[in-house]
Amino acid sequence: METFTKVSVVKKANVYFDGKVTSRTVIFEDGEKKTLGIMLPGDYEFGTAAKEIMEILGGSMDVLLPESSEWLTVNEGQSFEVPANSKFKLKVKELADYCCSYINE
Amino acid sequence: METFTKVSVVKKANVYFDGKVTSRTVIFEDGEKKTLGIMLPGDYEFGTAAKEIMEILGGSMDVLLPESSEWLTVNEGQSFEVPANSKFKLKVKELADYCCSYINE
Repeated sequence: METFTKVSVVKKANVYFDGKVTSRTVIFEDGEKKTLGIMLPGDYEFGTAAKEIMEILGGSMDVLLPESSEWLTVNEGQSFEVPANSKFKLKVKELADYCCSYINE
Repeated sequence: METFTKVSVVKKANVYFDGKVTSRTVIFEDGEKKTLGIMLPGDYEFGTAAKEIMEILGGSMDVLLPESSEWLTVNEGQSFEVPANSKFKLKVKELADYCCSYINE
């Protein structure tokens, strides 16, 4: 059972897309931020500020990365990276559990 | 923005009722356990092992406590307590954000 230790967690959830996407914010000792979230089936578009690394902890999703024309399927245990200040699309076909890391460069 | 500090968080989500109820487990330095969760609209029955204190962080729900015949409405900022080794029912009418504390007596 993998855990994050010595972290802070924001009590209230982040809620997007009418609750179809929800997450909790985790802050690490060095200031790094991650969110642990759930996506229900649906089609979503997200914008990034910082660079993001999305790790799929459960379920799967298809992702259309910025400046790409090809959808990629990302399964449990896999990750994808999204550049800062960009947009990406997701098609979630089954409940997905994810960890998003925000990378300040 | 209220946060829990110096805690451990289990990376993977807890998923119940086909994903209509999901939560993350938070462990405190003294070993206390809480879960931070989301409930989508629906009717649910839960069983407790430890005594539980349920705090509503967002939304609202109706609760039927064990050995009670009257449904109570619990709103954001309110809490209710459920004895150990018992069952309780919830009617969730809008997305609810909650914090559940497990109390070992």
